[in-house]
Amino acid sequence: MTVRPLVALAMGDPAGISPELTARLGALDDIRARCGIVVIGDRRIFDAGARIAGVAPQLKMIEQGTNLRRDDADALFVDLGHLDPADVEQGAASLAGGTFALANYRYALELGRDGRVDAVCFTPFNKQAMRLARADYDDEIAFSAEVVGLKTAASEFNVLDRLWNARVTSHIPFRDIAARLSSERIHRALALTDGCMRNAGFARPRIAVAGLNPHAGDGGNFGREEIEIIAPVVAAAQQQGIAAEGPFPADTVFLRAKAGAFDAVLTMYHDQGQIAMKLMGFDRGVTLLGGFPFPICTPAHGTAYDIAGQGVASVGASRAALLLAAEMAAAASSGRRP
Amino acid sequence: MTVRPLVALAMGDPAGISPELTARLGALDDIRARCGIVVIGDRRIFDAGARIAGVAPQLKMIEQGTNLRRDDADALFVDLGHLDPADVEQGAASLAGGTFALANYRYALELGRDGRVDAVCFTPFNKQAMRLARADYDDEIAFSAEVVGLKTAASEFNVLDRLWNARVTSHIPFRDIAARLSSERIHRALALTDGCMRNAGFARPRIAVAGLNPHAGDGGNFGREEIEIIAPVVAAAQQQGIAAEGPFPADTVFLRAKAGAFDAVLTMYHDQGQIAMKLMGFDRGVTLLGGFPFPICTPAHGTAYDIAGQGVASVGASRAALLLAAEMAAAASSGRRP
Repeated sequence: MTVRPLVALAMGDPAGISPELTARLGALDDIRARCGIVVIGDRRIFDAGARIAGVAPQLKMIEQGTNLRRDDADALFVDLGHLDPADVEQGAASLAGGTFALANYRYALELGRDGRVDAVCFTPFNKQAMRLARADYDDEIAFSAEVVGLKTAASEFNVLDRLWNARVTSHIPFRDIAARLSSERIHRALALTDGCMRNAGFARPRIAVAGLNPHAGDGGNFGREEIEIIAPVVAAAQQQGIAAEGPFPADTVFLRAKAGAFDAVLTMYHDQGQIAMKLMGFDRGVTLLGGFPFPICTPAHGTAYDIAGQGVASVGASRAALLLAAEMAAAASSGRRP
Repeated sequence: MTVRPLVALAMGDPAGISPELTARLGALDDIRARCGIVVIGDRRIFDAGARIAGVAPQLKMIEQGTNLRRDDADALFVDLGHLDPADVEQGAASLAGGTFALANYRYALELGRDGRVDAVCFTPFNKQAMRLARADYDDEIAFSAEVVGLKTAASEFNVLDRLWNARVTSHIPFRDIAARLSSERIHRALALTDGCMRNAGFARPRIAVAGLNPHAGDGGNFGREEIEIIAPVVAAAQQQGIAAEGPFPADTVFLRAKAGAFDAVLTMYHDQGQIAMKLMGFDRGVTLLGGFPFPICTPAHGTAYDIAGQGVASVGASRAALLLAAEMAAAASSGRRP
């Protein structure tokens, strides 16, 4: 019998919807059958979130450093006792909020690094608050790589239901995108996507590669990157056993993927994928950090300061993030990792 | 009592689904209540399309040059008698096909130019066939402007249900987009969108303007076009009475528009809008040529050579195109044109 994977769930920014989402996750009985969870945060913030959400999750409090048992039937809680709800101004990014989220996340990552949990999940961070807490905070990938000691490539994926989206370039100025698209970068992104998806249990992920230009260049009429760069990379990847296809026009590739023709779409830039993924399921999208020795997942949406404290936030994406992390950890432990 | 507008319906490429779509439109009784139609084409090609579609539209044949009566209860057909179905190879772009479509469209445009119809609609063209028929054929806008004698700016819009999408740049290489986005070009597109939508009956169209960079630049962190170019244009347009807002991040602006917050989205480049519009309704999207003295509409999809002749093509987008043309013509004649 397979032991359930254990997922560390780090509480995110306390001024938004993260406390109520964390509490809702702790109260979802159907998740317990798929994974154990250990929540990292402050119990007072968590309880305030539970009151907002109108849930009463049963949690077993454990001390920091306690041996974590994967067969524990209870949801566990490590109370770092580091933030008083009275110090949180709802709907505002703050140093205190960033410090709280960063400490929880670091703790969760260390559990993952040390093999004490099988996956890490977190409720939304506020980037401004993270930067108040740590001036050189760049993004989750850089911070996680530092804590875990990762030396190899990592990448962010967006996952919606069973469809993955990876991108070659991300948070860079639009005018720099075309120059950044080297064969090497595209190939690296393709190989990383293939590897991460195999780790997640896809035997041979079918990856559609988007073109860059309108109509994928229309045979060279509106740009030649498809002909000169992208198509040769796809051909080379196929030679290496990667089930890549393309380049395809960006404005129809997601229609085909949604219909089941592909497991993933590799896009050339941020909005090429994000426009589609958010339209297809803003409330269910998951962000996955791939390339780490354990899965790291979070809902794709943000802290939603505008609706914090109202108890109306949907737990859908957070639930999907937790379940994806658990599923990937289970796939890895069952030896499907190549 | 208002007289129904009369719409010229030009048959498109004969090798794809255009004949069956034209026949289906001719057979839709509910359209007759909203507009009169005069089909331009070859009766033999039309009848072949009707057989494929399994419909038996009742049409009144009229001679070329016959006076067109807007209160005619029948659907009319002008038979140019210029293409034998035996000369059409289904699923292949050809000189004969392009010549056929081009002649029909020219005839329809001349009816519009001369005020004999109130709007023009056409079933899909194949661009390759059009170029075989006329080597310097660029796109529908250039050809239409030539036939109509239009000297002012025209632009292509995509319309889905009640949502319009216009773009500042279109079929150009991706790497040229950023440099092409001048204040002048963005302002011109915004003013043209506002004007065309007022002509279409929107009293004061609410136009969302998309940013260019990921997260609309995130306050200048990933690009400065929003700050330096787009926001000032939006402010200037507002001063002139245009209900423009933005710039907004491209990956959520369509979610808001879909929810009803805007009547239109002005995008900076082709795929920024096309990815969203095709995902929201590939089968219902309409392309509108705006800026002409009468509305010109066509389904946003193409000739679909792969399913031609099977009778499975959806008439949805063609029906929406015809009704949008009729609605715009009615709005113009009722004096709502500013």
